[in-house]
Amino acid sequence: MEFFLPHLSTDSSMPLYERLYRAFREAILTGQLAEGEKLPSKRQLADYLSISQTTIETTYHQLVDEGYVLALPRKGYFVQNSTELIRSEPIAQNTQQEITAPSYRYDFHPGKIDLSHFPLDQWRKCARDVLTDRNRELLHLGHPQGDLTLRQQIASYLYQSRGVRCTPEQVIIGSGTEQLLPFLLRLLGDEGVLAIEDPGYSLTHHFSQNSAYRAVPVAVDEEGMQVSLLWETAATAAYITPAHQFPTGAILSASRRNQLLKWASETGGYIIEDDYDSEFRYVGMPIPALQGFDTQDRVIYLSTFSKSLMPSLRIAYTVVPLHLLEMYRARFGHYAATVPRFDQATLTQFMALGYFEKHVNRMRKLYKRKLDLLHKVGEQHREWLHISGDQAGMHVIIDCKTSYTGEQLRTILAEKGIRISALDHYRIDRKAYSSKLLLGFGGIPDEQMEAALQELFQQLSQYHA
Amino acid sequence: MEFFLPHLSTDSSMPLYERLYRAFREAILTGQLAEGEKLPSKRQLADYLSISQTTIETTYHQLVDEGYVLALPRKGYFVQNSTELIRSEPIAQNTQQEITAPSYRYDFHPGKIDLSHFPLDQWRKCARDVLTDRNRELLHLGHPQGDLTLRQQIASYLYQSRGVRCTPEQVIIGSGTEQLLPFLLRLLGDEGVLAIEDPGYSLTHHFSQNSAYRAVPVAVDEEGMQVSLLWETAATAAYITPAHQFPTGAILSASRRNQLLKWASETGGYIIEDDYDSEFRYVGMPIPALQGFDTQDRVIYLSTFSKSLMPSLRIAYTVVPLHLLEMYRARFGHYAATVPRFDQATLTQFMALGYFEKHVNRMRKLYKRKLDLLHKVGEQHREWLHISGDQAGMHVIIDCKTSYTGEQLRTILAEKGIRISALDHYRIDRKAYSSKLLLGFGGIPDEQMEAALQELFQQLSQYHA
Repeated sequence: MEFFLPHLSTDSSMPLYERLYRAFREAILTGQLAEGEKLPSKRQLADYLSISQTTIETTYHQLVDEGYVLALPRKGYFVQNSTELIRSEPIAQNTQQEITAPSYRYDFHPGKIDLSHFPLDQWRKCARDVLTDRNRELLHLGHPQGDLTLRQQIASYLYQSRGVRCTPEQVIIGSGTEQLLPFLLRLLGDEGVLAIEDPGYSLTHHFSQNSAYRAVPVAVDEEGMQVSLLWETAATAAYITPAHQFPTGAILSASRRNQLLKWASETGGYIIEDDYDSEFRYVGMPIPALQGFDTQDRVIYLSTFSKSLMPSLRIAYTVVPLHLLEMYRARFGHYAATVPRFDQATLTQFMALGYFEKHVNRMRKLYKRKLDLLHKVGEQHREWLHISGDQAGMHVIIDCKTSYTGEQLRTILAEKGIRISALDHYRIDRKAYSSKLLLGFGGIPDEQMEAALQELFQQLSQYHA
Repeated sequence: MEFFLPHLSTDSSMPLYERLYRAFREAILTGQLAEGEKLPSKRQLADYLSISQTTIETTYHQLVDEGYVLALPRKGYFVQNSTELIRSEPIAQNTQQEITAPSYRYDFHPGKIDLSHFPLDQWRKCARDVLTDRNRELLHLGHPQGDLTLRQQIASYLYQSRGVRCTPEQVIIGSGTEQLLPFLLRLLGDEGVLAIEDPGYSLTHHFSQNSAYRAVPVAVDEEGMQVSLLWETAATAAYITPAHQFPTGAILSASRRNQLLKWASETGGYIIEDDYDSEFRYVGMPIPALQGFDTQDRVIYLSTFSKSLMPSLRIAYTVVPLHLLEMYRARFGHYAATVPRFDQATLTQFMALGYFEKHVNRMRKLYKRKLDLLHKVGEQHREWLHISGDQAGMHVIIDCKTSYTGEQLRTILAEKGIRISALDHYRIDRKAYSSKLLLGFGGIPDEQMEAALQELFQQLSQYHA
């Protein structure tokens, strides 16, 4: 009696029933075993191959389970209509469609951080310290707001360095500011109006799905957001970067701060204070965070370790007033913290051993040195070059007397291999144009800084009026 | 001439201007320097303290900057109205409001994983391997979908173990399934209807903000979701757990799978296939993922390392059809990946060295042993105890002949120090009640398993009819 003989692979590392299964599957998919065709009887095939009938049974059951074969009681096993089960070949590993970023000679993008000085050996030491059997508990999910020991470090650090007043329970950790913002916005109400700085972070991508919430741009000048305009906007919350306005670098003046707190107090509005690069202030001492002056529980404080440590770590945090904490726990308490616990523990150790403070202090000095160099080199071009927003942070604004717009200059410089951002890129209301550029100094290595600046100003000097 | 003499701290590690600043600030906040009072002239104070006038100037500028003091040209410095600037004392470190979880003698919660066997030493070795100077690039942000090398490992693993066909570019990494889902839902359209399994994961918390999208429950039976009902729902997408239905443990039958693919093909609907614990199948070989049979680019595959590795690592991944990838990159390409790059690299190394595969195989055997023990102990109670959903995964369903509901039994057992979940907890339409319970065996250590089961069944036996 003729029957189909499966072609078995000789791969002895693979169990026999699996080899048998693959042989039948292949035969069915390629049509060698046609639809409706009867499979060999289990006993016959077992005899022929000199293997146990149980092995054949396991194979046939699997084929039935997956729909390749139909079992008809007292009749046998028959190949099913397999057209819906056809599987294509695996797609060849094709990386041609991977996003490739263009490379630049000099990268002045404001988002770049100087990471050549990051103490990787200290970080590795801390990671080793925490990846021990004593810490097996860290394999399990922890507190949804992040582990208490890290929140304690953060609360303590914030009080000493920024004057933020809070307990560790008010701290919530997340995987970056972008990941925390949607939760904060939902805490502020199912509907509302968020005043945002213009120019500033757009944030509008957070609202596209939710038509009940909208963003309203409020103009920024040399004192920061024009707070008096808030009363005209019907805003229920304001998102602001008071310590170093992004992107202009303006520092919110004392009177504007008082005005902002007054607005919040009078209207019941909330203030989301994004303190993103506040560790880096070069003139005098840091302006304390607005949160420390808030007696009405209006301020939600937000910051990140992306600038002060490493962007790829993805740890940011927010401090919410107690009454919002209750709401947060009720609505989002079931979400697990998204920051891996071993990373939380490594950071806790890094802070506890004083490495974080030392690193920030060292980086502040290094960035200050680059800033001083910027001023020195820029001095040579003082007839047409104006520098502002240089009191803090990791970028400044440069302005040249020119008829070209910032976007035009950006494009021209990009063609010369120099990457820089135009201020207009961050405008929300695109009515005004300026020639202002954001010059970040995080992305240029120390030893290249002078040459990079000379080249940049050399290029720009061709375009000033 | 009398003037206010600031009380300087003797902390010599603090710069002089900072000590001076703090002394003035304290005096203003406590009212020692009253509102409107004139500060000492810079020259006078410099003379008196024998310090440079520049130091006094820096201090006074800071006080002006922060709004404590007003500078009136040619008149001097005057204490501002400081009531809005009063800062309270730091809140005492109070951890009393921290969430504390009750403790149980035996925890059968289906979400618990057996982590005592996790090879922490191998993971630590991999972490050490990647935290090197050679990998400094990992401090910067990487590919928004996650690093290519990890996506390559995942694509390869998925093809071999689950029959998923994709290139690494179709893989997107996220911080847990919960973090990825909102992005996937937004890819499927600004509005629509998502069919979800009932009982099943609720997912409705993803829709509360967006009234344009709603979830529709579709009943589950012993073959999984009742797919034929989909045509009645106007669903534009279906979320399904076909390899091991959560929570019933049903495996989607071959005919239901074909039906589901047919539904997607006919209606243009999408299928989100959540393959969450597919590594653990105990009877025969794993049913390949639905994605491998999809020739119409309807299936979005979703899975996680939470069950197979550690929940606290927070790495999950999705595989999207090419045409949705374009849309994903256009809409969300500017979001940085939320998984820390060093963790991505550690996992890549862990997989490349074969540790992941070995670990999963070992865990599969261990869970199978616990399952066998469950059957052995359960056999003693076979008159009233029924076990189902035991072909895969890390939990089974137990049912006793009883008039008590599952929720009632859960409460009774909790009082006895035993934690277990009721199936009804996962019902979306709460019309039906059952006595079914979810028994997870991840949370009970090997050596306690038999005693825990004996205790559990002993307790339950009192309540069967």
